[in-house]
Amino acid sequence: MSSIIPVLRPPLITLTTDFGLADAYVGVMKGVILSIAPEARLVDLCHLISPQSLIQAAVQLEASVDYFPPGAVHVIVVDPGVGTERGVLMVETNRALFVAPDNGVLTLALRRQQAVRWALADDGASGHMLPRLSATFHGRDVFAPLAAHLSVGVPMAKLGDVVEVDASRPPVDVGAAALALPQPRWLAGGELEIHALCADRFGNVITDLAREASGINGDGSSVTFLISGRAISGIHRTFADVLPEMPVAYWGSGGRLEIAIRNGSAAQELSLQPGDPILVSGFTS
Amino acid sequence: MSSIIPVLRPPLITLTTDFGLADAYVGVMKGVILSIAPEARLVDLCHLISPQSLIQAAVQLEASVDYFPPGAVHVIVVDPGVGTERGVLMVETNRALFVAPDNGVLTLALRRQQAVRWALADDGASGHMLPRLSATFHGRDVFAPLAAHLSVGVPMAKLGDVVEVDASRPPVDVGAAALALPQPRWLAGGELEIHALCADRFGNVITDLAREASGINGDGSSVTFLISGRAISGIHRTFADVLPEMPVAYWGSGGRLEIAIRNGSAAQELSLQPGDPILVSGFTS
Amino acid sequence: MSSIIPVLRPPLITLTTDFGLADAYVGVMKGVILSIAPEARLVDLCHLISPQSLIQAAVQLEASVDYFPPGAVHVIVVDPGVGTERGVLMVETNRALFVAPDNGVLTLALRRQQAVRWALADDGASGHMLPRLSATFHGRDVFAPLAAHLSVGVPMAKLGDVVEVDASRPPVDVGAAALALPQPRWLAGGELEIHALCADRFGNVITDLAREASGINGDGSSVTFLISGRAISGIHRTFADVLPEMPVAYWGSGGRLEIAIRNGSAAQELSLQPGDPILVSGFTS
Repeated sequence: MSSIIPVLRPPLITLTTDFGLADAYVGVMKGVILSIAPEARLVDLCHLISPQSLIQAAVQLEASVDYFPPGAVHVIVVDPGVGTERGVLMVETNRALFVAPDNGVLTLALRRQQAVRWALADDGASGHMLPRLSATFHGRDVFAPLAAHLSVGVPMAKLGDVVEVDASRPPVDVGAAALALPQPRWLAGGELEIHALCADRFGNVITDLAREASGINGDGSSVTFLISGRAISGIHRTFADVLPEMPVAYWGSGGRLEIAIRNGSAAQELSLQPGDPILVSGFTS
Repeated sequence: MSSIIPVLRPPLITLTTDFGLADAYVGVMKGVILSIAPEARLVDLCHLISPQSLIQAAVQLEASVDYFPPGAVHVIVVDPGVGTERGVLMVETNRALFVAPDNGVLTLALRRQQAVRWALADDGASGHMLPRLSATFHGRDVFAPLAAHLSVGVPMAKLGDVVEVDASRPPVDVGAAALALPQPRWLAGGELEIHALCADRFGNVITDLAREASGINGDGSSVTFLISGRAISGIHRTFADVLPEMPVAYWGSGGRLEIAIRNGSAAQELSLQPGDPILVSGFTS
Repeated sequence: MSSIIPVLRPPLITLTTDFGLADAYVGVMKGVILSIAPEARLVDLCHLISPQSLIQAAVQLEASVDYFPPGAVHVIVVDPGVGTERGVLMVETNRALFVAPDNGVLTLALRRQQAVRWALADDGASGHMLPRLSATFHGRDVFAPLAAHLSVGVPMAKLGDVVEVDASRPPVDVGAAALALPQPRWLAGGELEIHALCADRFGNVITDLAREASGINGDGSSVTFLISGRAISGIHRTFADVLPEMPVAYWGSGGRLEIAIRNGSAAQELSLQPGDPILVSGFTS
């Protein structure tokens, strides 16, 4: 039951929420954490996740967690089910510890790392939460204190019924809920249909086509993307490879195909919403 | 004159301002603090307070300060009077130290804690500020260095004329200025008039009805709220207790009655501005 | 080749980017830094620089860097040239270390400090970057790891070919690129033409007139500013010196002349865009 990867000393805890920055919600979570883990280093991953957008949070986590030192603790509070009976999921991987609502928000991050064991918080965890639980702010009352306690070495087995992960099964098979994500699919005509997942600050659109899964060989120069009737040729190295105001496809820094407009917003100018299809032709798996 | 609660080692300093995040103002304050208190842990409470909105800042502080470990230092710079003769207030409570303009912004936070002593900065403090004071950025020149010096143990008595607080008087009776806040009031017809104070990121409206002061017994199911001609029935546990798009009243995580619209913005959809009245009937004190 | 000013222990690293706060880009940079410099204290200067706005970033840095303790490391990622051959600049001054794209973004900050030596990253630096460089996220792959390595004592000479700065030459003469900035200029009629550089959160407009270079003696009461046909009289101490809704000129906390509207936005109400001229009369150098 011992950890594969010990938590860091001093602890390093990242926070990802949809709480925004207009209120003190995130600051309060940090107050709770520092009350339990006074030496913890705290890093904000993102707090401007669109309210309740599990996909956006999942994509952000996927692109981030591998860049933290082994033993980091990641706490995520994007929680449409707050106040309902959704579970509180703790996952230990070969690299990190995660604490999040059991709503699938970890689905993509766990494909990057190897889950080792997990647990849903049970009655044993209540002594490691705040004494009085509100119905609306579990980030403060539940997730922050659990993450803080795990970060200072409280074993997961004290907080829930630990399930060891069968390494032969898909690593995302933890918790009760997996995230329903768009998936690239082959059409009868031989094209590949991929989909917008979300956009970043610059309006760059991140898609469901992951580089490692794409099977693309060579430079991608023969590929054409069809978006809202507009064709984009080839996969380039970066947006600097096309003229200003031109659309461009490239492998993004998070490992997914992205669509951008140089010095513009692809999300706006191509009217790409989460889930919208993008047709890819000239693409052979 | 010794502190009831010693400041933390290493210090923990929270920052609350209306400086926004589009400029380096907050970062500069942190540079000043770390020049004086190199080991200080810094936590942002909120920097997107609406410019000069003392009520919003007061509500944020009220909901936050109890969640920090004893001995934290809270510095607040929402300061419509910068450049005028308003005082610089330092307050020590049974839980924390506060440094803020003497403009009432601490009014609500101090109802949560027991003020022990306070002082207005006087000439003795000038050696603990930056050498040259600007007329427009006292966050950098005055508040950050005073908070940093207090956090490393400089006694308040060195910075101003300390007033011991008479525990039999209202705990908010510190400094020269109290905040003019809306108050719930009973109407002749037997209804209670409460008021919107501010809204959070989600458009949830926080009111001036504090749970502990409300005298509500039981489940609040007999209460009706009248907002801009629209009736909302009962006090629920959380917005998850009503259907999507429906309005709901509940006790917020900060201890105040809040009005929300599930998956929507109550502030927008109900046109609730700060100070706007909400009529409550079926409510017996 | 030894440092004039040793880096701090533990390190203090500030971050300035145009990455915004809607994504985890900044958080990922911090993960990379803490993987290399686990004890580093991290301070966000500003991440809402308008995309690719070198002038705005330069002005923010100018107003900030002197307020950090000697030995701080400043990493800046405002990088229109990412993915092209632009250099990676490291500068050591008498106060700090800077790591930034070689695009002139340091121009103003280096006028405040005395550059001592600099280098452009060369092949020797590649072992101190992430193993695989993306084409679009050098903040993560290049700048964060270089700053982290410098902060823990890796000498600049290991990362590039160090150029000692001739103290008799302008201190901004480092790197290959200087920033093209508007400059105040005397007109034939005897007026001084100054220019808007950028605006802060409050809509206060920061100009290219630096106090120390202005040669203004006395109180500036005889000066008149002409902006879009509107006259503003005198240089005041602060916006509190004029009536609400009135425009006012004053020396800003960053050392530059600023134009504000009390309780309003000068940028909006006076339609001031970066580069726009402001005519100053009654001003004698």
